[in-house]
Amino acid sequence: MALPFRRESSETDRMLALSDGVIAIAITLLVLEITVPEIPAGSPLSVLPDLVFAQWHEFFGFVLSFLVIGSYWVNHRRIFIHIERHDAGIVWLNLLFLLMVAFIPFASSVFATYPDQFGIMFLSGTLTLTGLTLALLWSYASRRELLEEGLGSRAVEIQAARFLASPFVFVLSILVTAFDPGLGILTWLLLIPINGVLQSRL
Amino acid sequence: MALPFRRESSETDRMLALSDGVIAIAITLLVLEITVPEIPAGSPLSVLPDLVFAQWHEFFGFVLSFLVIGSYWVNHRRIFIHIERHDAGIVWLNLLFLLMVAFIPFASSVFATYPDQFGIMFLSGTLTLTGLTLALLWSYASRRELLEEGLGSRAVEIQAARFLASPFVFVLSILVTAFDPGLGILTWLLLIPINGVLQSRL
Amino acid sequence: MALPFRRESSETDRMLALSDGVIAIAITLLVLEITVPEIPAGSPLSVLPDLVFAQWHEFFGFVLSFLVIGSYWVNHRRIFIHIERHDAGIVWLNLLFLLMVAFIPFASSVFATYPDQFGIMFLSGTLTLTGLTLALLWSYASRRELLEEGLGSRAVEIQAARFLASPFVFVLSILVTAFDPGLGILTWLLLIPINGVLQSRL
Amino acid sequence: MALPFRRESSETDRMLALSDGVIAIAITLLVLEITVPEIPAGSPLSVLPDLVFAQWHEFFGFVLSFLVIGSYWVNHRRIFIHIERHDAGIVWLNLLFLLMVAFIPFASSVFATYPDQFGIMFLSGTLTLTGLTLALLWSYASRRELLEEGLGSRAVEIQAARFLASPFVFVLSILVTAFDPGLGILTWLLLIPINGVLQSRL
Repeated sequence: MALPFRRESSETDRMLALSDGVIAIAITLLVLEITVPEIPAGSPLSVLPDLVFAQWHEFFGFVLSFLVIGSYWVNHRRIFIHIERHDAGIVWLNLLFLLMVAFIPFASSVFATYPDQFGIMFLSGTLTLTGLTLALLWSYASRRELLEEGLGSRAVEIQAARFLASPFVFVLSILVTAFDPGLGILTWLLLIPINGVLQSRL
Repeated sequence: MALPFRRESSETDRMLALSDGVIAIAITLLVLEITVPEIPAGSPLSVLPDLVFAQWHEFFGFVLSFLVIGSYWVNHRRIFIHIERHDAGIVWLNLLFLLMVAFIPFASSVFATYPDQFGIMFLSGTLTLTGLTLALLWSYASRRELLEEGLGSRAVEIQAARFLASPFVFVLSILVTAFDPGLGILTWLLLIPINGVLQSRL
Repeated sequence: MALPFRRESSETDRMLALSDGVIAIAITLLVLEITVPEIPAGSPLSVLPDLVFAQWHEFFGFVLSFLVIGSYWVNHRRIFIHIERHDAGIVWLNLLFLLMVAFIPFASSVFATYPDQFGIMFLSGTLTLTGLTLALLWSYASRRELLEEGLGSRAVEIQAARFLASPFVFVLSILVTAFDPGLGILTWLLLIPINGVLQSRL
Repeated sequence: MALPFRRESSETDRMLALSDGVIAIAITLLVLEITVPEIPAGSPLSVLPDLVFAQWHEFFGFVLSFLVIGSYWVNHRRIFIHIERHDAGIVWLNLLFLLMVAFIPFASSVFATYPDQFGIMFLSGTLTLTGLTLALLWSYASRRELLEEGLGSRAVEIQAARFLASPFVFVLSILVTAFDPGLGILTWLLLIPINGVLQSRL
């Protein structure tokens, strides 16, 4: 005895509202991980640049996580522009994506506490999995023919490549970190040219 | 001197916006309960798997609470698809449901701190009550004839069974925990097949 | 050189979205004030009821603040059902209301820490001011003729009485608390019959 | 192979939903920076006014940050009333604005901890940059001709002046603070008459 699914699919609005809510909260909670620097009593103001420099990984983790979640939100929006119908699978895959997004502030906090091999790998791993759930969502929607009519299989593949670009960079950074953590962090900067090119070319 | 209720019922949008907001926040706040593991100074990276393992109940509580709130959100959406009118009773029962949802991060935190008999029962009890307020909402809407026309009483009952499935599992887990806490946690896993069956059959 | 105000007034949606967002967050942050009880190491499970009882004011403050914010949200919704136009005054009075709502979790936390004369007065005072900004919003909208046509001045006054009921109870509880704090807390319970009567009669 | 951009631009709704979400959360998180005053055990209630006075900068920082974010939200709304199309540049400039907004609770917390030269400059600097990203968004939209037809270049410039007013006050307060921190804080009060005049004249 199936419920009328057409009705439910018109309820996409609430799924997007929940998604935008979780993303907005996760992206804003990130700042709670940055600790206010403590100036030792009696020290002059001039020690502050040093204190702030010692916290560089907290600011870096904040900006990185913010921009990555931001780019995933852009991709999420792109997916749901093309989805015309949805079923229970979409709802649960979307909840899985939101579970990963909600987990990012914790991973970002682990990186801020341990900006070494473990922290880099943990944050990169979390961001990889988050990106992959989005790619999974896209692949599911395309296999179940929930996408709008007239979207060629070539366009679907190009989008898939785009969704896989960030996870690819994070997997690469995990591999590089195994040899050189400093280089592993630098690997993250590849996100900028790669996303820039994908944005303009595709 | 009654206010024109038709106008108010067209304000369902704001009730759903508030609900999606509270659910999105509660679901995202859960991650704040997970503490960043502390590596004792000088210990090698290899102690980390042990530290993470020692925190298994925090991750487990996070994922469980996230997915249960997620499934309650799915049920909430299902209820409001069928509600065509609403009165003050719906508004206050919905606020009661949101009160319970907002309480879940605390219950999840109690479980993370005391993953024993008390913690399991406290979290199960909170999740039971949350689920019951949803069932109450459905029952109230059906008795007050606020549901859409043409929804047979049989369909209403099938939905009610669905809304009672999760509370039933949590009550069961409370009973089992009284004898064996470990088994009580395993009882939670019944949610997966039961919800899976209800999802596909109904 | 005035901006076309008709355009802006169609932007009421965003004002309501911001309002629902702030209210949803404030209402959900309240739970962060409840601390997880600490069982002294080695103590049996049987000490827990005592520990929970010792925290009664935290749970009480949570439920009270949640329900009062909930009832203010109901009133806010009621106001904006009747507002047909808005100007800069409405926008800023609404921000003032949201400022007070965002402050409630702090006041609730003060009460949880000092459940005595000071805490009761501080929370009651905050909830009074919050309620008064809503009454101010209504009075401003009615004086500026921003309400829908056909709303008699009698209906406007009845609504105003409704918006003033909760602040009245909180002012009363401040006065009573000056003599007897325990009685001051009990005064809050007057909210239930008064709001109940106002809900059904008006 | 460009995606149909017209479709995406109809997705402005989600960009505004994300923005309202981040703003609502940042504005509400501010209150978490205010610490509950601790009354030394045994001290009489009469010490409380002193304790609260000692925290004046926390309350001041809360109200200032709340109202400034509020006014930026008003400006943001004003910008998007006039934007009729959007491209990837708007999306990313908007994310940059949200990044700055999400950072404000941290800057506000730094000011609450160090209400001296450094804290004032740090908060003023953050609020300056946040305001400038909004002005940048407006300038970008006007140069790319994404604004509605019929908006004269004079109106565009007047709006730009409005968006630059707050950053101007904060830059001024940084300069004044270099000489006299107390005067630097007073400089913030210039926001009231300046925004008041801009609100009524333009």
